[in-house]
Amino acid sequence: MQNTKPAIILSRPQMGENIGAAARAMANFGLTDLRLVAPRDGWPNQRAVDMASGAFDHIPAPQIFNTLEDAIADLQCVYATTARHRDMIKPVLTPAAAAQDAQRRVKDDEKAGFVFGAERTGLTNDETALCTAIIQIPTNPAFSSLNLAQAVLLVAHHIHEAQDNTAEYVLQHGDSPPASREYFENFFGRLEEELEIGGFFSAQDLKPTMLRNIRNMFVRADLSEQEVNTLQGMVSALIGKKKREKKAG
Amino acid sequence: MQNTKPAIILSRPQMGENIGAAARAMANFGLTDLRLVAPRDGWPNQRAVDMASGAFDHIPAPQIFNTLEDAIADLQCVYATTARHRDMIKPVLTPAAAAQDAQRRVKDDEKAGFVFGAERTGLTNDETALCTAIIQIPTNPAFSSLNLAQAVLLVAHHIHEAQDNTAEYVLQHGDSPPASREYFENFFGRLEEELEIGGFFSAQDLKPTMLRNIRNMFVRADLSEQEVNTLQGMVSALIGKKKREKKAG
Repeated sequence: MQNTKPAIILSRPQMGENIGAAARAMANFGLTDLRLVAPRDGWPNQRAVDMASGAFDHIPAPQIFNTLEDAIADLQCVYATTARHRDMIKPVLTPAAAAQDAQRRVKDDEKAGFVFGAERTGLTNDETALCTAIIQIPTNPAFSSLNLAQAVLLVAHHIHEAQDNTAEYVLQHGDSPPASREYFENFFGRLEEELEIGGFFSAQDLKPTMLRNIRNMFVRADLSEQEVNTLQGMVSALIGKKKREKKAG
Repeated sequence: MQNTKPAIILSRPQMGENIGAAARAMANFGLTDLRLVAPRDGWPNQRAVDMASGAFDHIPAPQIFNTLEDAIADLQCVYATTARHRDMIKPVLTPAAAAQDAQRRVKDDEKAGFVFGAERTGLTNDETALCTAIIQIPTNPAFSSLNLAQAVLLVAHHIHEAQDNTAEYVLQHGDSPPASREYFENFFGRLEEELEIGGFFSAQDLKPTMLRNIRNMFVRADLSEQEVNTLQGMVSALIGKKKREKKAG
């Protein structure tokens, strides 16, 4: 089966450590197609394997190429990750936008690749010209240098995010289901009753407003059934029912 | 002036290298408020400074606290970055959603913080309970471990992205302005004329469609003035005008 997920292409990487850290970032985010163009120290590289923390158990060995042209030959769209401004007419995307673009292309049976240049020099102008678009990672202009593996991490994260359907916000409820409105109101009615008995509503004309404010506070907390049970127990304890029960027992 | 940008809080960090790499990631993305809770090797820490690659020239020295409670006392909202599922009723956000939430709160003069646990163990349940929400970074379940500094990098990047107004897509045009429609059509009219002379439109009834397709191809390229000039020169060369001019000269 063809590997349709975007490829990560490291052009002329110098340090094995960075190749390994890039592979680790890829595995973290479910990418498996690593390509190396003329790695300085050849391949295999023990430093890369050491730094990968086992990532190469999750992704195949990288394909090795002599030139960037060869490495991207089968791809329809190729994003060049660069830090510097280029005097080159080329679309410039954020990593998030590029990842979404790549994801859309994957759905159209195209295959995308993200190219990263050598550690010190980045991509040459000729390498960049081979690519269909540029990615620039917005950073603090006064301190902008990201290392190679960090750039791969951010791009891989955005690719994963573009494919991911994790909800942006969920309330994690553990084992107990969220309380139904009825379940909650059953508690709230009792609370109101006990507050009345305890003389909480000194000014009866303010009672509706006070109750509304208290209800809002509890409703906002989006309680689980277990938590409503806990509140029931707290009310029992506060009104001395438990104590009385114990004494009676 | 109060530092309103979100704080990064490392709880019980073990390795100075990770503190330094976290500081570097913060400086990359314009964050300056680093707080350490009971760092194992104390503070200052030379390994942290070495790993920070000069980041501590851009951010103040971290504040040191004995407990997480003290470290977050002045914050209105605190996100706990955790990898594991917790049996705890708490909102769970993606880093992007948390960063947007934090950015919204900054505009309301609130201050947010992002808490990261110790390298091996992460945040304890008691530490997590102190926080108002949980961030989970979606990763490949089969290979999910991000190191501390990588988690800080991703969160800092999203905070920067939420504050950043970089366009998701721009076409970088270099020194030459995008061509006006008139500038382009002036070229296109000439191209049509020369194609006609050259016998390109063998079937005259297909000419409108062919012209439309050719126009679309050029329009899609979103040409600069300089590029239109280049195309003019290419047409001149192809029709032999330059050659003739040279010979005449």
